[in-house]
Amino acid sequence: MNFLEERILKDGIVKSGNVLKVDSFLNHQMDISLMEEIGREFKRRFQDKPITKVLTIEASGIGIAVFVAKEFGVPMVFAKKSKSINIDGDLFVAEVESFTHKNKNQVVVSKRFLNADDHVLIIDDFLANGCALQGLISIAEMAGATVEGLGIVIEKGFQIGGRVIRNLGYRLESLAIVDAMDGETGKITFREQ
Amino acid sequence: MNFLEERILKDGIVKSGNVLKVDSFLNHQMDISLMEEIGREFKRRFQDKPITKVLTIEASGIGIAVFVAKEFGVPMVFAKKSKSINIDGDLFVAEVESFTHKNKNQVVVSKRFLNADDHVLIIDDFLANGCALQGLISIAEMAGATVEGLGIVIEKGFQIGGRVIRNLGYRLESLAIVDAMDGETGKITFREQ
Repeated sequence: MNFLEERILKDGIVKSGNVLKVDSFLNHQMDISLMEEIGREFKRRFQDKPITKVLTIEASGIGIAVFVAKEFGVPMVFAKKSKSINIDGDLFVAEVESFTHKNKNQVVVSKRFLNADDHVLIIDDFLANGCALQGLISIAEMAGATVEGLGIVIEKGFQIGGRVIRNLGYRLESLAIVDAMDGETGKITFREQ
Repeated sequence: MNFLEERILKDGIVKSGNVLKVDSFLNHQMDISLMEEIGREFKRRFQDKPITKVLTIEASGIGIAVFVAKEFGVPMVFAKKSKSINIDGDLFVAEVESFTHKNKNQVVVSKRFLNADDHVLIIDDFLANGCALQGLISIAEMAGATVEGLGIVIEKGFQIGGRVIRNLGYRLESLAIVDAMDGETGKITFREQ
């Protein structure tokens, strides 16, 4: 069991409806030492890749992605979620449909911050159905950049996102893959990696 | 002139309508070395305070606040913006009215992450009219926490927010205070501090 799985068992809370609350250390209150450790771990896993940019999406990805970017010594770019375009300038826009909420959202990145010379590592805190990640991949591809990989802190292995992205041929590394959760007992089953 | 004012002059872009674009290094693409320097500078300015939590608001505050929290060796908590409450559990909720958009937004923080023993340093990237900051102060006060100070990266000195917060007696430190901008010539005038 790795450092993150241990932390999830210690401080994560399983709620009914396959909800895993990790807001005491990951996505509301953030434990900075843990973020640094996550940064070092993604550096280790993608150290063979010539990363030039770390790409994430607001909001909770930001606090993780900055520490990954720090390890690689590169800038971090965060995509913005937008109901409609109101940011000026030339933008890459991906329209992503939420499987959960049935609504459409736009994910936008300024064209000034991604280009064909970039080797991108995409980072996010959670992967479930993968809508946001698909938008980020789409934007990196629009820019002509190379998607070197995707680093996720917690993947819900029983939802479709991880399979879709691996099927598309991308290298996806998740620090913890939750294959099952029991809302009654609180038991969490991690995938052996 | 300090490191941030120099960087604003180098890479900031003045647009008409008193808009200062700093998205190439601060709030869309982030220069991680600069974020670390900002973290160290706020540590220096508030080193006499017994900070236990750094508090910010999503999204662009997060990437700055984590480096401030790292310097103090404390957790970072980010408030969430919400049109309506849909997060479960007990929350501190501040309703803030935007001076610019005339709409109301809720700023929410879980009651589990702020309490009367906390000494809070509030961090954000921009201060203009100060609506979001007022919401953060209000939440810290609801928790019974001590607001030890507020650290802002760029204050628009010609808007009302900074004056309001200083008038209320809070210690507000802005790394750069822009007193005037000329959309025609691109000239930026910083307040002498």
